[in-house]
Amino acid sequence: MSIPGPLNPSSRILMGPGPSNVHPRILQAMALPTIGHLDPEFVTIMDDTKTMLKTVMQTENELTIPVSGTGSAGQEACVANMVEPGDRCVVCIHGVFGGRLADMIGRNGGEVVKVEAPWGQPIDAVDVEAALKGGKTKLVAIVHAETSTGVLQPLEDISRIVHEHDALFLVDTVTSLGGHPVKVDEWGIDACYSGTQKCMGIPPGLSPISFSDRAMAALDARKSKVSSWYLDMSMVKNYWGQDRTYHHTAPINAIYGFYEGLRLILEEGLENRWARHKANHDLLVKGLAKMGMSLLPEERYSLWSLNAVRIPEGVDDMAVRKFLLSEYGLEIGGGLGDLKGKIWRVGLMGYTSTRNNVILFLEALKEALAAQ
Amino acid sequence: MSIPGPLNPSSRILMGPGPSNVHPRILQAMALPTIGHLDPEFVTIMDDTKTMLKTVMQTENELTIPVSGTGSAGQEACVANMVEPGDRCVVCIHGVFGGRLADMIGRNGGEVVKVEAPWGQPIDAVDVEAALKGGKTKLVAIVHAETSTGVLQPLEDISRIVHEHDALFLVDTVTSLGGHPVKVDEWGIDACYSGTQKCMGIPPGLSPISFSDRAMAALDARKSKVSSWYLDMSMVKNYWGQDRTYHHTAPINAIYGFYEGLRLILEEGLENRWARHKANHDLLVKGLAKMGMSLLPEERYSLWSLNAVRIPEGVDDMAVRKFLLSEYGLEIGGGLGDLKGKIWRVGLMGYTSTRNNVILFLEALKEALAAQ
Repeated sequence: MSIPGPLNPSSRILMGPGPSNVHPRILQAMALPTIGHLDPEFVTIMDDTKTMLKTVMQTENELTIPVSGTGSAGQEACVANMVEPGDRCVVCIHGVFGGRLADMIGRNGGEVVKVEAPWGQPIDAVDVEAALKGGKTKLVAIVHAETSTGVLQPLEDISRIVHEHDALFLVDTVTSLGGHPVKVDEWGIDACYSGTQKCMGIPPGLSPISFSDRAMAALDARKSKVSSWYLDMSMVKNYWGQDRTYHHTAPINAIYGFYEGLRLILEEGLENRWARHKANHDLLVKGLAKMGMSLLPEERYSLWSLNAVRIPEGVDDMAVRKFLLSEYGLEIGGGLGDLKGKIWRVGLMGYTSTRNNVILFLEALKEALAAQ
Repeated sequence: MSIPGPLNPSSRILMGPGPSNVHPRILQAMALPTIGHLDPEFVTIMDDTKTMLKTVMQTENELTIPVSGTGSAGQEACVANMVEPGDRCVVCIHGVFGGRLADMIGRNGGEVVKVEAPWGQPIDAVDVEAALKGGKTKLVAIVHAETSTGVLQPLEDISRIVHEHDALFLVDTVTSLGGHPVKVDEWGIDACYSGTQKCMGIPPGLSPISFSDRAMAALDARKSKVSSWYLDMSMVKNYWGQDRTYHHTAPINAIYGFYEGLRLILEEGLENRWARHKANHDLLVKGLAKMGMSLLPEERYSLWSLNAVRIPEGVDDMAVRKFLLSEYGLEIGGGLGDLKGKIWRVGLMGYTSTRNNVILFLEALKEALAAQ
């Protein structure tokens, strides 16, 4: 065979649903020399990584680590460790990723009780309470930031209800962590997962998770083995804990990048970072309004990180996205499922969330719409 | 909290059981700008990656891709997709990684029938045949290169027997692919997985897998869903195939490194690469013999990639390894399980497998033993 040439990826402005742009310091860190996964130096890196991640996730949970796979692997880690065959699980679905939670819980033998809301709206706490009253429930699963609809889900009322019913609270923060407040301990989240390639601004490949003491107790009390060996936290915790027992080989260079990404978040400060994400979202909404355009969710439920922009009547979804990519090297995302052709998903996440990018996007969009 | 300083990992000679040293071109590729996982440019990169990987794995199998996780994730992908509850599975165990296969198959509901050999010896085809005669068998699983014992397992006789009994042949090539011949099609392997951080010389984080048409037919014929959503190849194949249907976000920068690693393998040529691994193994064995030392397996069953060196009577395992690391920046591995304190595992894999490294290791080892 003829050998393909060296890679030469174009410079892109990544304003889709992720990955977002990556700070050069993170890319440089990923190119540092690989060392062994049991090297004393790497053990220190793991410790510092855990400490920084705890701050970013606002938790004291000991099991707060990056899972060796993308966001969906972290999602599966939470589900597979918490759910045993026959467990009644209330699953909130108001977009694609809630549906995925239901699928995963079903594969692990859980009995799925669905609580739904129309796409573009949050789940109502009253509906969660009604579902909990239907039977003894092991856990309630919900998505904090629905990447498919741009909806920010209020969590505090639901958390209170979940704990009143002595259930575990499992929360997807893939598109919120690092851009919106995520307060694992204060909000009573028992199993939390996220992704690196959204508001954390780190390349895809790892998934931060955090398990509360209640979650660890549920894991210890299991009657059956976790279906996944790779994601079995009863073993993984010993590699990331004091024992350093070999489980699988950690993805060393990805963790270098993750470490540097955490440093960047803490240097900026969480409050500052949240404020930056909000300010650039506000600027986008204002600019879109001037063009007669709006978001799918009500403003009070709109994510700052992922903006679900209604496509104006008669506009060709794909033609606009292709124009932006070819003329501006600017990537935005299309809608998923029923929202295909109805919304664009415009990410302002992590390193991508800048005033410059918002202004450029609005101008480029005007040109794309005029070219229709 | 105080923010930890920037990373500054030491330069190491990685002669343990993996990761091995990484070529600078691969590290540079991993630092290229991240692009979107559905970007037309990334689609081309995926196509070229599959084509190169097929050549390296010596197969025409369409589903020949890197799984988004380390070697253990590829192992779990093979098991979870091939095994359904109640399936009779013959599992060959002659080291740690055969035992892990049995664990994973059990978690997926398979009925495990063990065929064992003493650690340090290969599995006997006669024993596999006897196990197959015991009942209708779905698959036979075996490790080609046992990283825990340094044993190279002959596969061709066993493959013939497996197919005579109409079973699927699942093979672990984590420590052989890129260093020893691995001929997926010629050897009738139905589900094959490997790792990147051994003889491929790429950082850990991905796991190459290949499924034959027979394996894909078995997947299509399943009565139950695959236990793992993340590793369900009935969905993953559509992302890597013509449809490009979104499943999970691929680890973009890890795939950049993988692509460059494949290019390096093909530039060297598979035959040349195998010869290099053999020559440096031979040099090591000769040097050890002069020091009165030997490997655990018989020479005809010894891996070129991972050398299981018997620790001489009275020598302090940990003291020697610590000396090599602190005085030479040279990492070797200890024994696992029953072999702890009895062997060192000396990797000569990928970019690490050089004449210079062998000579340096032998001299450093002499000094370490003299310092005892």
